[in-house]
Amino acid sequence: MKALTAGATIGILGGGQLGRMMASAAAQLGFDVSIYCPEHDSPAARVSASHALGAYTDIEALLDWAEGCDVVTYEFENVPVEAAKALIDAGISVRPGSQPLEVSQDRLVEKSFLRDCGIETADFAEVNSAEDIAEPLNRFGGSGILKTRRDGYDGKGQVRLETGDDFEAAHKALANAPCILEAMVPFEREVSVIIARDAVGDMLCYDLPRNEHVNGILKRSVVPSNLNEDVTKRAEAAAEALANAMNYVGVLALEFFVLEDGTLLANEFAPRVHNSGHWTPEACATGQFEQHIRAVAGWPLGPVTRYHDIEMLNLLGEEALVPPDVLSVDGVLTLYGKREAKPGRKMGHLVRRRS
Amino acid sequence: MKALTAGATIGILGGGQLGRMMASAAAQLGFDVSIYCPEHDSPAARVSASHALGAYTDIEALLDWAEGCDVVTYEFENVPVEAAKALIDAGISVRPGSQPLEVSQDRLVEKSFLRDCGIETADFAEVNSAEDIAEPLNRFGGSGILKTRRDGYDGKGQVRLETGDDFEAAHKALANAPCILEAMVPFEREVSVIIARDAVGDMLCYDLPRNEHVNGILKRSVVPSNLNEDVTKRAEAAAEALANAMNYVGVLALEFFVLEDGTLLANEFAPRVHNSGHWTPEACATGQFEQHIRAVAGWPLGPVTRYHDIEMLNLLGEEALVPPDVLSVDGVLTLYGKREAKPGRKMGHLVRRRS
Repeated sequence: MKALTAGATIGILGGGQLGRMMASAAAQLGFDVSIYCPEHDSPAARVSASHALGAYTDIEALLDWAEGCDVVTYEFENVPVEAAKALIDAGISVRPGSQPLEVSQDRLVEKSFLRDCGIETADFAEVNSAEDIAEPLNRFGGSGILKTRRDGYDGKGQVRLETGDDFEAAHKALANAPCILEAMVPFEREVSVIIARDAVGDMLCYDLPRNEHVNGILKRSVVPSNLNEDVTKRAEAAAEALANAMNYVGVLALEFFVLEDGTLLANEFAPRVHNSGHWTPEACATGQFEQHIRAVAGWPLGPVTRYHDIEMLNLLGEEALVPPDVLSVDGVLTLYGKREAKPGRKMGHLVRRRS
Repeated sequence: MKALTAGATIGILGGGQLGRMMASAAAQLGFDVSIYCPEHDSPAARVSASHALGAYTDIEALLDWAEGCDVVTYEFENVPVEAAKALIDAGISVRPGSQPLEVSQDRLVEKSFLRDCGIETADFAEVNSAEDIAEPLNRFGGSGILKTRRDGYDGKGQVRLETGDDFEAAHKALANAPCILEAMVPFEREVSVIIARDAVGDMLCYDLPRNEHVNGILKRSVVPSNLNEDVTKRAEAAAEALANAMNYVGVLALEFFVLEDGTLLANEFAPRVHNSGHWTPEACATGQFEQHIRAVAGWPLGPVTRYHDIEMLNLLGEEALVPPDVLSVDGVLTLYGKREAKPGRKMGHLVRRRS
């Protein structure tokens, strides 16, 4: 695929806030954006030149939509692999491709893939029924987290387990779905690498944010993370290995647990722009949304120079209902245009300089 | 009008690049934007939630469109005054109102209004026929600029004149339209004040850019302007007087000629965000587009703190056809999504930090 020029159309699968922010970044570069998603009145469609409503499984509708696009990307990792493959088979450029979806949609495949890339993870075991739990749980020291292999996000689809718990009930609470049992990790902090890789394989990492989760949902990212240089370099090298292994084009986030002794255990990756990178447009020469669009368009990456220290606070549920003029008093406010402030729902974020 | 909250709809009259950048800023704050303009496929409509096509003189269509808006603003000063008045008469909040249109659309009215506000301008005279030229031209020292009172922009609709020129031909070249003759000003530099005034009358000025025009079109704005503090304060006081006189709500730009001795002569004002303020989103806590939306939405203004020195370069005509990946190597690129790169047409701009 040749590099796109202004006026070209970038198709985005998905209509949420990530698509919305990618669409605005694309518009600033002179591109038109077309959104495909099943939701009416989506946040992304409301800032885009065009949109089509349809199921991700409706291949005919998808192909029809993609005819108007010069390249297609996605804003979330649960786009069906078949949808991406059908587009690719029809000769449409899909960046970053179907493999990142395939790998990241299944926690067991993902963890195995990370290990194949030489990236350390917490211990894990496959769980297909409650009987599969006791043995690895003991091996992990008597505590672990049972997670569905697919479809979990923001702390959903997971249960903490200790020896002696009712494993049948725990697995039933996850609908007896195929699961993965992961060892508990006594981490000292969580960080993520936001990496961008362009179409010729050049890569750049943003400064690592330190991430704070509450109830499994990202609450705050702070930069710098104050991780020592050696650990930082190892984290970046891991992200580079992962991006190279998938011949990735775009922005990708790899999340890590950091142990007291500097051991890095990869938790998961997201084949897309990432919540823990929402501070980048305010603090860096090139924000992650523009960076993703640049890569997808076949452009070289922009510089990721960070100009100042910064923090990003997520606004969840009713936190975003505080009058926004009040919210934005001491930072740059971004609201996602979601119509309903359900509890825990990501409604916006606030970015603040730190002096 | 009560302050708007996220989810409200901001209507913008006009579909050009200023509307486009205002729309993106509004979306970041969680607002929906609706564009009204006569042009199909306009740059602003392509980043907005909805749009209506219609003539500005089609009051019925305008009122119909405005029913879906919580407030209406405009992105250019040639919106017919009658259109704004009709909306206001129908009970729709129009910010910054109809008076700024009325004043700025006619150079003679504008210059008189500036003087009534105590703001000095170059000498000027009303010209209704070629016979009206000789006397004031002599009084101005034998040279001047003849401008149509209405509809000129970016150096269009104006002719330089000297004693002995063919006044008949000059006036005819301007279609014998009602004109204003302005004295030539031996200015040392040009600056502008970008001022924001909110609904309760609070005001903030951005640091003044120094502006460089080529063939009557803004080519470059540089901040800081290195104007001395006293002159800067007088320029800001003039902009405040002007904004107060119109009970203005939103962002306004007042352009000045600065003479060698520090004398400030106001040239014209634009009742909208302004090309010479395009560096503000990259250099300041709150950019001019967000600032205008904040004011129009009834929010308090955001801080205008400037974090670093900066310059803005306009990309005119084919300058924007350089592959944008090349263009954006050393700065933040914004392209307006215009379909045709006519000579001199503003196609985008580049913002660069200055060290």
